[in-house]
Amino acid sequence: MTNPIPQDPGWEARVRDSFARQPAMALVGASLGRVAPGEAEVLLPVRPEVGQQHGFVHGGVVAMIADSAAGYAAFSLSAPDATVLSVEYKINFLSPARGASLAARGRVAKAGRTLAVVEVDVVAIDASGAETPCARMLQTVMNMRGRADAPRGDD
Amino acid sequence: MTNPIPQDPGWEARVRDSFARQPAMALVGASLGRVAPGEAEVLLPVRPEVGQQHGFVHGGVVAMIADSAAGYAAFSLSAPDATVLSVEYKINFLSPARGASLAARGRVAKAGRTLAVVEVDVVAIDASGAETPCARMLQTVMNMRGRADAPRGDD
Amino acid sequence: MTNPIPQDPGWEARVRDSFARQPAMALVGASLGRVAPGEAEVLLPVRPEVGQQHGFVHGGVVAMIADSAAGYAAFSLSAPDATVLSVEYKINFLSPARGASLAARGRVAKAGRTLAVVEVDVVAIDASGAETPCARMLQTVMNMRGRADAPRGDD
Amino acid sequence: MTNPIPQDPGWEARVRDSFARQPAMALVGASLGRVAPGEAEVLLPVRPEVGQQHGFVHGGVVAMIADSAAGYAAFSLSAPDATVLSVEYKINFLSPARGASLAARGRVAKAGRTLAVVEVDVVAIDASGAETPCARMLQTVMNMRGRADAPRGDD
Repeated sequence: MTNPIPQDPGWEARVRDSFARQPAMALVGASLGRVAPGEAEVLLPVRPEVGQQHGFVHGGVVAMIADSAAGYAAFSLSAPDATVLSVEYKINFLSPARGASLAARGRVAKAGRTLAVVEVDVVAIDASGAETPCARMLQTVMNMRGRADAPRGDD
Repeated sequence: MTNPIPQDPGWEARVRDSFARQPAMALVGASLGRVAPGEAEVLLPVRPEVGQQHGFVHGGVVAMIADSAAGYAAFSLSAPDATVLSVEYKINFLSPARGASLAARGRVAKAGRTLAVVEVDVVAIDASGAETPCARMLQTVMNMRGRADAPRGDD
Repeated sequence: MTNPIPQDPGWEARVRDSFARQPAMALVGASLGRVAPGEAEVLLPVRPEVGQQHGFVHGGVVAMIADSAAGYAAFSLSAPDATVLSVEYKINFLSPARGASLAARGRVAKAGRTLAVVEVDVVAIDASGAETPCARMLQTVMNMRGRADAPRGDD
Repeated sequence: MTNPIPQDPGWEARVRDSFARQPAMALVGASLGRVAPGEAEVLLPVRPEVGQQHGFVHGGVVAMIADSAAGYAAFSLSAPDATVLSVEYKINFLSPARGASLAARGRVAKAGRTLAVVEVDVVAIDASGAETPCARMLQTVMNMRGRADAPRGDD
């Protein structure tokens, strides 16, 4: 999808503010990188705390940052009073997640009225900055209009 | 699949030992519950640290325990000198992950020579012990024969 | 999901009538088997016309009947003035599709207001009636309210 | 993946010959378009015979040509004595499949020793040649070495 136009002129502040309110992202050490309308990047330094038994980053953590990149790519195009919900995703692991850091880059492939389809590439970045494809995700996101992007008592 | 027979008589110790060596599971507070040949359960107390911006457990954390339950369900049937690798998975989120705790229960649907297909149900458990379906995963796992289930320098 | 209650008392006629209007199902020789609220079975005799280069039923045809079983399982629970749309699915092929016939059996796992999640088992049935698991599908279906289940000029 | 090198100098003849031996592709009217190492295109004229109840091409037929494009993209890189098997795939439907024809274009994203990951774009092409994205697939393919790409009695 080329040049999607955000519905909310304040989309970037809304995206960055929402990300900052996710304790799970802080827990794994993830931060928000570059954002653009329909795109979001989530960065993760590789640390032993997020590893699995082979010493690589746990696939679940790889998926977590990819999931987040997908959600914020879609969220950047949503209306000011809307939030988004991950309906489902599929992820393929292409190579072990190791190196200095990971970057998950999401791009909206199709933004519909109710649903958006988002693709995510996760790359492993070594100390020299060289990137290796690490995982690929295809995700479906639902627009929840009239729902504030904040904690709530009931769904 | 009914009554799969483990190739390794010491499968349970191998499963529990491998799980204990995953820092990422400790980071989110997950523990291994019931295991059986071709089955594994991963438990997660619901805590603010694993939340997202709406106050529910982050979908990435839900996927992480489901991924782990799938991997150990398959690992329980692998040969003593083998390890397993998550090739890919798909997850559908059925309802918000909230309550007192989550349980991810994996069962091997098909165990082939090279690949296994595993299904996982994640349920949300409230204070009274009542369970609500929360997510469903379908995962492909690869058997890596002759690979120790331990950190390694190269892949 | 146990005992879902159909919104439309005439659900079965609506399901069977809609299936009969799918030329692609006739093309591959598929027919509708048992239906129940939230469940649908699609049957396919194994014939050379639906084969691939190894002599088994083409995976695409296996997916086609599974897709149809999922859609009608969800359609059976929809309102009289609604239709359903397949949003996405994932399918794992468990064993070669051969024998006398195939049966794809869909069951709604979760029926939401807008989306339903459906699971499908495809089994291969030999001449003696013995069944072998052949494929597993997890599908997301969208409810389209106020849309007749009939050809239309525009979407 | 840029510039993959085929293992078999006769890859193109092998791909075209194998495609020609798939009765299911002939049944739906599909043909093989452009091929390159790690890439394959499958073309489908839109005809009523491959429709569903709304008058669009049946999603199962869309998936069938995408599945085939994925398989032949991977097959083009396999050894002369190998065949490939679709392990699983996920497909997202982006817009109704209508127009004059469809094209499914597969590209290998990662070619491993045992498994390949392939991405497929399906576009709908109208009478003027304009293309609209129609579906996106992410597929896992298994290399079967020492297996002729021909009918066999047993698996």
